[in-house]
Amino acid sequence: MEWLGRALERVRERRPLVHNITNFVVMNTTANALLALGASPIMAHSPEEVEELVAAADAVVVNIGTLDSAFVYSMVKAVAAARELGKPVVLDPVGAGATRLRTRTALHLLSLGGVSVVRGNFGEVSALAGESGRTKGVEAAAYDAARARELAVEVARRFGTVVAVTGRVDYVSNGREVYAVEPGSSAVERVIGRVTGLGCMVTALIGAYLAVEEPLRAAVAGIATFKVAAERAAEEAPYPGSFHVKLYDWLYRLDGGTLSRYARVVAYGAR
Amino acid sequence: MEWLGRALERVRERRPLVHNITNFVVMNTTANALLALGASPIMAHSPEEVEELVAAADAVVVNIGTLDSAFVYSMVKAVAAARELGKPVVLDPVGAGATRLRTRTALHLLSLGGVSVVRGNFGEVSALAGESGRTKGVEAAAYDAARARELAVEVARRFGTVVAVTGRVDYVSNGREVYAVEPGSSAVERVIGRVTGLGCMVTALIGAYLAVEEPLRAAVAGIATFKVAAERAAEEAPYPGSFHVKLYDWLYRLDGGTLSRYARVVAYGAR
Amino acid sequence: MEWLGRALERVRERRPLVHNITNFVVMNTTANALLALGASPIMAHSPEEVEELVAAADAVVVNIGTLDSAFVYSMVKAVAAARELGKPVVLDPVGAGATRLRTRTALHLLSLGGVSVVRGNFGEVSALAGESGRTKGVEAAAYDAARARELAVEVARRFGTVVAVTGRVDYVSNGREVYAVEPGSSAVERVIGRVTGLGCMVTALIGAYLAVEEPLRAAVAGIATFKVAAERAAEEAPYPGSFHVKLYDWLYRLDGGTLSRYARVVAYGAR
Repeated sequence: MEWLGRALERVRERRPLVHNITNFVVMNTTANALLALGASPIMAHSPEEVEELVAAADAVVVNIGTLDSAFVYSMVKAVAAARELGKPVVLDPVGAGATRLRTRTALHLLSLGGVSVVRGNFGEVSALAGESGRTKGVEAAAYDAARARELAVEVARRFGTVVAVTGRVDYVSNGREVYAVEPGSSAVERVIGRVTGLGCMVTALIGAYLAVEEPLRAAVAGIATFKVAAERAAEEAPYPGSFHVKLYDWLYRLDGGTLSRYARVVAYGAR
Repeated sequence: MEWLGRALERVRERRPLVHNITNFVVMNTTANALLALGASPIMAHSPEEVEELVAAADAVVVNIGTLDSAFVYSMVKAVAAARELGKPVVLDPVGAGATRLRTRTALHLLSLGGVSVVRGNFGEVSALAGESGRTKGVEAAAYDAARARELAVEVARRFGTVVAVTGRVDYVSNGREVYAVEPGSSAVERVIGRVTGLGCMVTALIGAYLAVEEPLRAAVAGIATFKVAAERAAEEAPYPGSFHVKLYDWLYRLDGGTLSRYARVVAYGAR
Repeated sequence: MEWLGRALERVRERRPLVHNITNFVVMNTTANALLALGASPIMAHSPEEVEELVAAADAVVVNIGTLDSAFVYSMVKAVAAARELGKPVVLDPVGAGATRLRTRTALHLLSLGGVSVVRGNFGEVSALAGESGRTKGVEAAAYDAARARELAVEVARRFGTVVAVTGRVDYVSNGREVYAVEPGSSAVERVIGRVTGLGCMVTALIGAYLAVEEPLRAAVAGIATFKVAAERAAEEAPYPGSFHVKLYDWLYRLDGGTLSRYARVVAYGAR
């Protein structure tokens, strides 16, 4: 898919400013992923400055991984400001389904109408669909590919947004079209569950692409970029510490041609 | 000690959910260490969700490294909920003795009766014993092996818990039995003081073992696992940045047989 | 410059306690940089303990990268306590100019009179000088070497402190003398903008040197140490993930002789 490589090149040319209100565990991880890719992250959460930063930003990432009431307040302000100003927002509903606070906060942020893309795992998106019992802590319960695809379409329709359900195969839908991103090598599958914040990293990459692409393609590009970089990293380093380091290297080294050639993206068109 | 290897295998089979209320400096570090070992971390501190998460968790890690009043409130709720529900808790009294806030908070959490294991350095456990002047910032003052062993026994008796005093030799006691974990190579001793959060990492590993072992053995297993992995990592990478990366690799690569064979654990029986 | 190497050796001998009130993104990064260098970091922000920690510390680092009102309150208390007790403080005005909260907070902290060194990029120091529009998020707008040098002198005079404007060439001034630190290889210039927290890391290193040197030299030494270590790291690892890891290795491996020999420091004397 040639547009994937062009999207990556546009990120590198434009160097979009991505404002992240995210969780404490991954602030460093996602800032480094955005820098390695070629975007310019700002990490900030004070309600006193959130509107100025949304106004300056090209895209906004909201991640509910370590909530407290002050963060929720800033997130609401950020999504409302982004909607007002027409800035794209990607939401990561980390742990939706695991606690009422998280499910409620994710649904409330979605209800504001400014979210362009939601990226979650199977359990989290199930919780947004009103199904419970599919989240164990912040990890997804048993992944069901057929149901994941349906979930992406259903939740996208319900909230009028793009939804990415990531797992072994990732499904992305705007409620009509569906893209699937196929898994890479078994080396990457072994190690990928052993590093924290990789889902959050995908969400941040989607944020960078939202500055240069429409939401459906931005979500596919963020996921595909991560998967191709992760596959290269796992080939060089099959253990989690070293793999994590090489992942930043490959987000930086990846060029548009390689991304277009190696991304395993399947488009299913309208349904 | 064959039980060490079996405990590691049980962690990998059960993949316990470990709820961490921990400090900002090490959230990423300890989440990655738990994932590399084979456990499933959740990092969360909001008082609004802490009880739900304790209920879902197999073990709870409480670490006072960067306190503020909201965190203290959540920690108290977590320990109380864990006691109510019979979930094991490991407490890391980071910086006890360095400030009154930290000493007071650690003692208050201990007084709630739900703490299964305390893991601290010499200065921190001295502070819990009512002795002052042995903490310099968050580092222990001069380590005294004979006194460290006594401290483990005394503080364990006083609070009715398991106490691990970590340092060159680590001492673990339930107030009757004592285990010592002997130091590894000089390579690891040179580098180990040059990476932040390694004590916190040991505490988190103890949390994972608390899901599959009784507290005394869980504490010994967490310490021994760290020491064997660190020794391998330091052999491959004698400098702090690279050593830190390899440490996650070896927490993942370590198998039960290797752990049992290379752990330098001495049991002193009842005293 | 022989004094550079001697300063590094004094840091290693004294192992100064450096108290950091810093942003969430770089807490781990700067703690590890200080440990690798040979200093002893404490990361803490509770207003309840800040004065005790300033009293125990040899130097204080204040970094406004992820502000909220509780952090601002602790920072004010820390700078006031440091002034009272004669402890040196280095201030990193991250994102000054990007939001009113940040500009106002940085200027307020400077007005308290206890800041020994300010380290910022071109846009941030421009904002302290009352010029706007030179900060894009937390990154500096187009760097202007001649203006950077003037800015260091002007802002140093205005606030009676040492000011370091870092960029391709770094300028450090106490309002009379000026030091320039020249750039390293092109390898390091390519990768250095692709890792988060490196400016914050320089600030933290200046904190360590403030414990053993007067402010002008401490600022030069912190910058020069970073640059020499970064150049070595980039030679070994030209991509951002691996470079970041090697940077800690080289902060640890660097010796006084190497630092003195390879630092590209030019002193311009009084002006």
